[in-house]
This record gives sequence, C-alpha cells and structure tokens, in this order.
Amino acid sequence: MDLAEVNFNKMKGLVPVIAQDSETNEILMVAYANEKALNLTLSTGYAHYYSRSRKKIWKKGSTSGHTQKIVEIRIDCDQDSLIYKVKQIGGACHTGYYSCFFRTLDKKGLHLNGKKVFNPQTVYKQVK
Amino acid sequence: MDLAEVNFNKMKGLVPVIAQDSETNEILMVAYANEKALNLTLSTGYAHYYSRSRKKIWKKGSTSGHTQKIVEIRIDCDQDSLIYKVKQIGGACHTGYYSCFFRTLDKKGLHLNGKKVFNPQTVYKQVK
Repeated sequence: MDLAEVNFNKMKGLVPVIAQDSETNEILMVAYANEKALNLTLSTGYAHYYSRSRKKIWKKGSTSGHTQKIVEIRIDCDQDSLIYKVKQIGGACHTGYYSCFFRTLDKKGLHLNGKKVFNPQTVYKQVK
Repeated sequence: MDLAEVNFNKMKGLVPVIAQDSETNEILMVAYANEKALNLTLSTGYAHYYSRSRKKIWKKGSTSGHTQKIVEIRIDCDQDSLIYKVKQIGGACHTGYYSCFFRTLDKKGLHLNGKKVFNPQTVYKQVK
C-alpha cells in the first residue's frame, strides 16, 4: 500500500517504532522500520522491523517464537514515529526480560527493575 | 554526571526518548536527547530534549507551560533508547492533544483517535 503519510526521510528511510503491550501499555522495545517492514506489518498482522546492524528486515520472534501480534498502529503528529500496540508472546527482550526496559537510570547509575520471563539460553538453543 | 552507560554513538550523539504518562502508561511523544539534555533532565527533574531541527536543547513546556516532571527514567538492553516516565501538565502535543499519537494507521490510512486537552492558539499566544 501507499504509505506516503509516513515521513521516512528524516532518518535515512527509517522511523523509530515503539512496541507497546496492548493490554497494560507497558513499553516493550524500540526498533526501526522502513517502508517495506511497515507494509509487511500491515499485511501480515505481525510486527516487522528493519535491523540497522544486519541491514535487513526481520520479523520479531522468527527465531525465538516470541512474536508480536498487531492490535493497533499509531502515528505521531509529525508522522515520523510509530507505535505498534501488540500482544507479545513470551518476552520482547533477547535477554529474557518481558521488556527491554528492565533497568532504571538515575544520578547514581543503572538499577535492575524488570521481570524475567524466559531463559534465553534455552529459547535460542532450541532453534539452532 | 558521567553517563558512560548510555550509548549516544549510534545516532550522532543522540538517543530516542519516549515520554510516557507515569500513571496510565500512555505514550505521549518521541523526541531525542544528547548527553547534555539527559544531564539537565537528571539534575532538574524536568524533561529536556535536543531539537534536531533547531539544533539546540529545549525544556519541554518552556513556551507552553506544559512541562513534564520526571518520575522515573528507564533505559533499554542495548542502552541506546530511553523512557522518561512523567507527570504531564496540560498536553504533550503542540496541536492540543494530550498525546502526539492521536491517530491510528491501518491499511486504509490515518484515523483520528485522541483527546484534545487545550487550544494551541490560546496557549501559544499567551507567551508571545
């Protein structure tokens, strides 16, 4: 489909995407999408992103099984950021936490404050 | 303070910051911070960002009065994205909506779905 409303120009063809738990509104992760990733997300109903390091599209959960089923997509006022509101299977973070934001930051440094929901060594070993 | 834990290198000295309502978990806006903006946020207790278009630090609400008092800051697994959990005065969006994400996006296009909480013509006129 035509995604002319989305401004992919500010960041070399990418927009930041926040994945958010559709029931609790907890923020799960931040990743990036190009136009193709967003089109795949819209057409399949599952979250797709573009990996800046691997330089390719990825479907969240294609390795771990921890997919993100899309409930709603939101776009901001200047049309250069997206929210994927999702039903998260397993956990969003490759470290085993439900959310990638499992630490707080204050003047003293970083502090652990998150919920571990799976063992990454088990989950990622299964598929090798 | 030393913010060596934050990876500002992936995006030319910037990290994306999500402002999130600390009570409802509603996502309010996405902006960017450099090290100085994050330090000001930590030292003052109010959300500061770096404007990519104006190329300068800004305190949210310095014009409108719609400040964001910091309740908690979170950082993600690879330490290149932040959440400011905040108490939002007024509304976060310059258009008058409480959140900048006042529209949904689906295969058919964009759809309005947000809460207008102030009149931007009134709010921004007061300070001129």
